Amino acid sequence: MKPEISQRGYEMPSSPIRKLVGAARSAERKGRKVYRLNIGQPDIPTPPQAIEALHHIDRKVLEYSPSEGIESLRDKMSEYYSKFGMTISPDEIIVTSGGSEAVLFAFMACLDPGDEIIIPEPAYANYMAFAISAGAVIKSVASHIEDGFRLPPVEDFEALITPRTKGILICNPNNPTGYIYSGEELMKIADIVKRHNLFLFSDEVYREFCYTDQPFISAMSLPGIEENVVLIDSVSKRYNECGIRIGAIVTRHKELRANVMKFCQARLSPPLLGQIVAEASIDTPEDYMKYVYEEYLKRRDFLIKRLNEIPGVYSPMPMGAFYTVAALPVEDADDFCKWCLDEFEYEGATIFMAPASGFYTSPGEGRNQVRLAYVHNIEYLAGAMDVLEKALAAYNHRPV
Amino acid sequence: MKPEISQRGYEMPSSPIRKLVGAARSAERKGRKVYRLNIGQPDIPTPPQAIEALHHIDRKVLEYSPSEGIESLRDKMSEYYSKFGMTISPDEIIVTSGGSEAVLFAFMACLDPGDEIIIPEPAYANYMAFAISAGAVIKSVASHIEDGFRLPPVEDFEALITPRTKGILICNPNNPTGYIYSGEELMKIADIVKRHNLFLFSDEVYREFCYTDQPFISAMSLPGIEENVVLIDSVSKRYNECGIRIGAIVTRHKELRANVMKFCQARLSPPLLGQIVAEASIDTPEDYMKYVYEEYLKRRDFLIKRLNEIPGVYSPMPMGAFYTVAALPVEDADDFCKWCLDEFEYEGATIFMAPASGFYTSPGEGRNQVRLAYVHNIEYLAGAMDVLEKALAAYNHRPV
Repeated sequence: MKPEISQRGYEMPSSPIRKLVGAARSAERKGRKVYRLNIGQPDIPTPPQAIEALHHIDRKVLEYSPSEGIESLRDKMSEYYSKFGMTISPDEIIVTSGGSEAVLFAFMACLDPGDEIIIPEPAYANYMAFAISAGAVIKSVASHIEDGFRLPPVEDFEALITPRTKGILICNPNNPTGYIYSGEELMKIADIVKRHNLFLFSDEVYREFCYTDQPFISAMSLPGIEENVVLIDSVSKRYNECGIRIGAIVTRHKELRANVMKFCQARLSPPLLGQIVAEASIDTPEDYMKYVYEEYLKRRDFLIKRLNEIPGVYSPMPMGAFYTVAALPVEDADDFCKWCLDEFEYEGATIFMAPASGFYTSPGEGRNQVRLAYVHNIEYLAGAMDVLEKALAAYNHRPV
Repeated sequence: MKPEISQRGYEMPSSPIRKLVGAARSAERKGRKVYRLNIGQPDIPTPPQAIEALHHIDRKVLEYSPSEGIESLRDKMSEYYSKFGMTISPDEIIVTSGGSEAVLFAFMACLDPGDEIIIPEPAYANYMAFAISAGAVIKSVASHIEDGFRLPPVEDFEALITPRTKGILICNPNNPTGYIYSGEELMKIADIVKRHNLFLFSDEVYREFCYTDQPFISAMSLPGIEENVVLIDSVSKRYNECGIRIGAIVTRHKELRANVMKFCQARLSPPLLGQIVAEASIDTPEDYMKYVYEEYLKRRDFLIKRLNEIPGVYSPMPMGAFYTVAALPVEDADDFCKWCLDEFEYEGATIFMAPASGFYTSPGEGRNQVRLAYVHNIEYLAGAMDVLEKALAAYNHRPV
């Protein structure tokens, strides 16, 4: 006899990506090359200045940092935000252990068990996990591939509002769709938020990666809801240092900051070394970000063109971030993605994609969709698209 | 109008230490030296090998590590445990972002809202914060300074057991008391755990610091409850690298590990750089640990002797860790600690101690007690004790 684990644990989502990790490893063990378009681990180097900062550490003790993060890092982040027209004082920034902890602590500090948040879907799968951790309930409004996953109509949000609704969460630019909300759309959200006195959780970790001509608009810049906005941020995506685990919660809601700080104090401090690297990264010369930006732009253009050339495949043109959601000519993308890893190869290679089912909470939604990350170079993406094209043909003509 | 923060946030404890941080800074700004015996941030250097590991990083990308931690680190931890007679395979180890995340995820994976855990108090204040985060309820059994904070009688535990009781938590060696449970005491706990099919959360982060002649007994070594034990660990305390944020959950309960992993996957990965440092630290030559151990032993002996020489002060001899809880000849230690920082100085210095009220959940318990950390050198401790002696005399003879 052994004690029973928590019910909450059973409720935690098991991402369909995770379920395929074993299949991918197994394919590799059999000697097949696996094109990994499943996750956002880019092949772009971390800024050399950031790694040099580690080489120059001359401390005797790697001690706790303040629970809210090192002051000089928060100062630098404040300066950084000003480049995006966001007026944020260092006091309004709380450093977290990655964007992940930022979401968890924001939920913990804003939501009680049974409270509801509305999220347009498809959405980043781990929001669900953090909501379950906090005992909160996610209500989804559907966005659709046919219109490029633009903001669902305001009425769809209104229809979900109950006395337990405490917030709306947007991811902008969006993971997984790459959509960027327009100023008009953001004002509509601001209006709902204001009228119902909700929190607006705005995950803007892909802020640097906007490929439209429009300037990026942060939720922090929306008038009239200054104290409703809870910004979720991360430095990992900007500088390709996902392993350092440095993110932030930014809010002008003073009582909320005090509340978040209680959760921060309980875990003592965010990672010291990551903060040192993050600070050095923010000082990275502009040409690094320019290079990264142009690289992703080329990759995006290449990937979307190739996808749409494959018979039966459709991908809207993502406006930002480094993902796209594509519809495939298959009934069940979960099954197809697994089949690619288990059974298919073309010139010794196969492909690992994320079934989009993991980004939807409504059962059956997005069943024929996958998310592809364009975080590898064009040669790599070309090889992956060759495999995908052949795989679809073979899958749809296989004996059943 | 702005949205209301969560009720949970209001319930989160504000540590009495935190409330004094401002007073301590203010004293320093006025030019006073503040002897900081309030926290466990030792003055002992991090192993030079650990810092050199950072100097030798030659990666191009600081990428995500696996959610369960880097394999080579888990291998090394497994080896390390074997030195303590603990047979633990790398698969049974899940690396976390500090011991803090280990406690949070252990609670999340084992406890549902309303579930109860029994903890002997005084206890590390942040257990309460993590329990509130998980919606769980802490029931305290009292241990007492008069008998050196030994394990409360088994009947006291039994009396608290309800159908909602899911676990018992012990910290061994104990923070804040320095008590180490005897083999006999541990067998009594194991017996309750087994009879009621409970989890036994065992926080053993101070394992290296046992100053008795008895070998340390890990809960992982207790017979008959192999799958009940959830070990909470951290490398920070061993190697004085509190800032790297590397801890672990260790358990033989397979379903529990799978459950914990869902929370780990949601936050993607533990800090990469901390794991590199932790791995190098485990390779630290034995003489480092020997030096650290002997240093703490000397500091303990010095501090406890000086404390007990001050009229009206009583401290039991802590058996392990690097804290002691002392009773002072004052009615309200919260008030006395604040007064020291706000109003007292002796030869330009004052003292910052942790009021023990933060370690008790039962109101009024430990009101005349403080926790002192002996993580500074003897000269420093001597200065602090001179201040404490004078402060007590002044406080008790001040005009009211």
